[in-house]
Amino acid sequence: MSMHTSIATVCLSGTLEEKLRAAARAGFDGVEIFEQDLVVSPDSPEAIADLARELGISLDLYQPFRDLEGVDKAQFQKNLTRAETKFRLMARLGIDTILLCSNVGTATMTDDGVVVEQLRRLGDLADSYGVNIAYEALAWGRFVSEYDHAWDLVKAADHPRIGTCLDSFHILSRNTDLSRIAEIPGEKIFFLQLADAPALTMDVLSWSRHHRVFPGEGAWDLSDFLTRIAATGYAGPVSLEVFNDSFRQGDTNRTAVDGLRSLRWLEASIADTIAAPTGSASAAEPAGPSTALDLQPLPEVEEPRGINYVELSTDDLGALTRQMHQLGFQFIGFHRSKPHVQLWLRGEARIIVSEVTDGVGTGADAGGTSSTSADEAGTTSAPVNGTFLRGIGFEVTDSRSAMERAALLHADEVPRDQAHNDEVLRGVFAPDGSEVFFHQFEKATPAWIQEFGHDHDEQVSHIDHVNLAQPSNHYDEAVLFYTSLLALHAEPSQDVPSPSGLVRSQVMSSTDGSVRMPLNVSPQPHAEAVAGRGIGSVVEAYPEHVAVACEDIFHAAATALSRGLDFLPVPQNYYEDLDSRFDLAPEFLQQLQENHILYDRDEHGQFLHFYTSTIGSVFFEMIERRGDYRGFGAPDAPVRLAAQHRKNAQLSAQNAQMSGQQG
Amino acid sequence: MSMHTSIATVCLSGTLEEKLRAAARAGFDGVEIFEQDLVVSPDSPEAIADLARELGISLDLYQPFRDLEGVDKAQFQKNLTRAETKFRLMARLGIDTILLCSNVGTATMTDDGVVVEQLRRLGDLADSYGVNIAYEALAWGRFVSEYDHAWDLVKAADHPRIGTCLDSFHILSRNTDLSRIAEIPGEKIFFLQLADAPALTMDVLSWSRHHRVFPGEGAWDLSDFLTRIAATGYAGPVSLEVFNDSFRQGDTNRTAVDGLRSLRWLEASIADTIAAPTGSASAAEPAGPSTALDLQPLPEVEEPRGINYVELSTDDLGALTRQMHQLGFQFIGFHRSKPHVQLWLRGEARIIVSEVTDGVGTGADAGGTSSTSADEAGTTSAPVNGTFLRGIGFEVTDSRSAMERAALLHADEVPRDQAHNDEVLRGVFAPDGSEVFFHQFEKATPAWIQEFGHDHDEQVSHIDHVNLAQPSNHYDEAVLFYTSLLALHAEPSQDVPSPSGLVRSQVMSSTDGSVRMPLNVSPQPHAEAVAGRGIGSVVEAYPEHVAVACEDIFHAAATALSRGLDFLPVPQNYYEDLDSRFDLAPEFLQQLQENHILYDRDEHGQFLHFYTSTIGSVFFEMIERRGDYRGFGAPDAPVRLAAQHRKNAQLSAQNAQMSGQQG
Repeated sequence: MSMHTSIATVCLSGTLEEKLRAAARAGFDGVEIFEQDLVVSPDSPEAIADLARELGISLDLYQPFRDLEGVDKAQFQKNLTRAETKFRLMARLGIDTILLCSNVGTATMTDDGVVVEQLRRLGDLADSYGVNIAYEALAWGRFVSEYDHAWDLVKAADHPRIGTCLDSFHILSRNTDLSRIAEIPGEKIFFLQLADAPALTMDVLSWSRHHRVFPGEGAWDLSDFLTRIAATGYAGPVSLEVFNDSFRQGDTNRTAVDGLRSLRWLEASIADTIAAPTGSASAAEPAGPSTALDLQPLPEVEEPRGINYVELSTDDLGALTRQMHQLGFQFIGFHRSKPHVQLWLRGEARIIVSEVTDGVGTGADAGGTSSTSADEAGTTSAPVNGTFLRGIGFEVTDSRSAMERAALLHADEVPRDQAHNDEVLRGVFAPDGSEVFFHQFEKATPAWIQEFGHDHDEQVSHIDHVNLAQPSNHYDEAVLFYTSLLALHAEPSQDVPSPSGLVRSQVMSSTDGSVRMPLNVSPQPHAEAVAGRGIGSVVEAYPEHVAVACEDIFHAAATALSRGLDFLPVPQNYYEDLDSRFDLAPEFLQQLQENHILYDRDEHGQFLHFYTSTIGSVFFEMIERRGDYRGFGAPDAPVRLAAQHRKNAQLSAQNAQMSGQQG
Repeated sequence: MSMHTSIATVCLSGTLEEKLRAAARAGFDGVEIFEQDLVVSPDSPEAIADLARELGISLDLYQPFRDLEGVDKAQFQKNLTRAETKFRLMARLGIDTILLCSNVGTATMTDDGVVVEQLRRLGDLADSYGVNIAYEALAWGRFVSEYDHAWDLVKAADHPRIGTCLDSFHILSRNTDLSRIAEIPGEKIFFLQLADAPALTMDVLSWSRHHRVFPGEGAWDLSDFLTRIAATGYAGPVSLEVFNDSFRQGDTNRTAVDGLRSLRWLEASIADTIAAPTGSASAAEPAGPSTALDLQPLPEVEEPRGINYVELSTDDLGALTRQMHQLGFQFIGFHRSKPHVQLWLRGEARIIVSEVTDGVGTGADAGGTSSTSADEAGTTSAPVNGTFLRGIGFEVTDSRSAMERAALLHADEVPRDQAHNDEVLRGVFAPDGSEVFFHQFEKATPAWIQEFGHDHDEQVSHIDHVNLAQPSNHYDEAVLFYTSLLALHAEPSQDVPSPSGLVRSQVMSSTDGSVRMPLNVSPQPHAEAVAGRGIGSVVEAYPEHVAVACEDIFHAAATALSRGLDFLPVPQNYYEDLDSRFDLAPEFLQQLQENHILYDRDEHGQFLHFYTSTIGSVFFEMIERRGDYRGFGAPDAPVRLAAQHRKNAQLSAQNAQMSGQQG
């Protein structure tokens, strides 16, 4: 047993039947029926109740009932009649609790006494139908907009059928003091709804109706919130009510899994700090808060220690490995049992290159390659052509525990061939279709390197960060994925201008910066359609890159130049602007320009870097951090994006010309 | 000569070169160079100046310069040095005016005296470079955030090189009293920037950076604003500065045309109310405000009197005309010179049906069919298969003038074959690719009806409204298009829930309601890609419909039923909910349900309607308005959308099964 998880049907896309099936398939225990979903459904209430029974999920709440209280007698009588029709409907559905929202539209009486009396009368009516009323303060309620006001009214009504509903959005969006939650006895909380939200400054109604996200995908501390609820003794459903424009149009099964993951993660995040009810707890344990919620932990995961390797898939092996050679990577060897997989090293920066020819997958490598890739629904499809970032190996303190946790968080495992004497590696698909592998952290060179017949490279170099392209409709899901599976943190997002629109960039990182992944949402509309790797996917619209840290960027650039690297060009105007922004010595500026190196500075240090041209949907960045510079050269990103845009335009023009000559 | 139009390069997508070419091609007189666009450009300042000269456009402003004033002496000295590098750069560009934004980040001194002195010193430096400083209060400036404060500072500085820049966004977003604009002498306004914006309640910085739109596309009264500026004697550029996420990623030529249209429309809207300078005005004219802006009017257009006809294109003639027959439309005849074009009437509701077979266009009809259709770039392409709404004929008081106006507003004319004795009809493409034709309003039956050999129909019926699907990335453009070409008004938009996401619906209408067009933006991501009609276009994702008003909906439904109409099904749950919402007589409710009729009511009247199934991307709605009901049955739209969703899902399943059986 675990806590009873539930989700409002309004969170999901599709028909009511599709929503119920998706919730059940994802593993929810129940759903809230949103009235509108029922009204537009061709299925009778009885048929919906039967379907829920068949699917093994409960119908936990009927919602919403609006604009009941704080009205004059004549209107109240009409409202009671309206309520009665809902109670009859609920009986047909087999639902015993209804959400009553504080009056937004029709309330004319500010007197709490009137409201208390009307709640009591509603309670009497509800009692005759066996219905419980969960009264909730909407953040934009006319006279009742704070949870503690609603609780005061419920307390004063003192009716067994009248309780309160607490919704994290309505409470946290108003920044209300949470301390009075502790005053509410758990049994008077008739329902609990959770939503997270990004920190936006806008009217609370629009914020609520369009921008809610699942716990862990926004800016709020839902762990603290749920801890406070748990401490009241609340034992009912923990339900998601998230109005989100993207979720409403997304794949319903996928959204449901995303939602359940958020609850499992949240549950586990507080399971260790809250003891079970004293009856079942050991007497030796300290007397922390106890709870009637049966909170289940997950296998622990610590922040990753680093990026063990990046795997690139390519159908243009010559071009890719030539570029890596130019960057100072050394060819180490082919995998002993996977003939199309090779390893390249530059110090501790490890790149696995797996060749794909004509759409035929060529076997998994030691670093985790599968012969499949995730499509939109998380199922598998055939290998794809192109050069793209296939996956990342993360160094974790306990790889077995990380994989168990990932599975319990409903991540799809990457199918993988494994030779009997290779290191056992397991991984899952990220929301963008890339593969995430869990490597046991070792201080020495990783064991799997031996599978390539490696002798050690002496260069001081490592993977500094990996930039991933994200489909915009799975962006929130990605944040929760990396937070819940890998304990990474989301930094505030930034908008970066490009010639084709604003790129939203959000860094996910570990506290010490040993893992850094900027997630980029491209503005290209067609990039929304497909999550996944390779041709036709989101990475086509926005190339991804691996940033390699080195000790001496000028030396790296000189080597690259001597080996004929195709640097991404940096305009003269950039260097002139740099000169006006920073007081750089003329020789240094010239040295930067001669080496195609871009420059940034903050109060902690300096950042020097250059980019390569793009092969398929991948390019490299070579960087040198001086001092304690924390960023990624964000002021330089528009320069890169513009240069890549020009390059693409040139290629398009050349292709058009060539096909014209052929035609 | 007309007023000098300009546009900031930040409004447009692409490289700086592409932006300049797009601005020139659309017909702008000049541009503002946004610094970032120059920094990322491979072209030198001299090359940009040469390009502008070659294109025949002026470089009107360099922008922005930030965080100069209100700082201590040491910092100010550094800021002057920074300014000097910009002045040198401007000399290379040949630009003589720079935008100085009020300090946002570094100001520490609240004393206006310090700012005045620093402006004066900047003015002295600027003078040695022949540069003018246009000082602008940003709405989020640290100490200077109001236009009149900025003007007080400029006035006190009293320096020939220091003037102010007025930006409608920064002024109207703060809701500042506009009366003090009249105090500013026109020659001290060094620059004028215009932007409109939707009425949003959010932090002003996000509002400004993401949601600005061109004049006529938002909620503000830019005519009043420009009138006030014109009255000061301002004679400089009227420039658009619009940060908009969609424009930044849209087709740059198309956005430029949209922008110029907004300025031409705005100019014309005030041209009649503001006299030319007294020197050139006739002595007999009343002494209204005069202006140094040479404001050019456009041919007048009044609101349309009605929808003359709707044209549907089809490759499924039998299914479409059968449905029209079921709805009580009468076949009138084939066009005398266009053999594949026929006319159907129901009272004054006129539907032209043009058959397209296997992608071969079949000649234009009297109502305005061309043999081409607009693609994304506004150019023409081959005819397309499918059943779709091809165009609308609007009744206007002066069709010649309306067409001239449309041409001056840069709308693309629909190419059209014209038989020598047919009525001369001209039209243009709307942003969604549909055709807009201008018909001379006549009280009697339109003359072109004779071309089909018509005898008059006695039914009382007309086209009540037409619902169009809009690609979301051309939504603002569509609002301006219908506003500026047809004098329609935008009503506040609504979000309608559907199983695949929220549909944004905005009604464009004439004041008396004789023309009503809800524009709907579908949530389907792929619907963003293509504007246009037929297969692969936005209308695939969201069907469009023609709503026909009748006198007796029950009679119409009975006729339709007896003729075998495939009604869109309405669920039982809907009628039960209707019963709880409205106190309807049981017999009436039953009558509604038996006839598949939906019902709505407001304080003005009642709305009864039913829908047909969809053919291609078109369906019909039959409606009866009782009393003075103004709406469109918005509460019923989710019912329709859900039913259409289910129908599509059934069809997909059937198709999958059929292809499975065949395979």
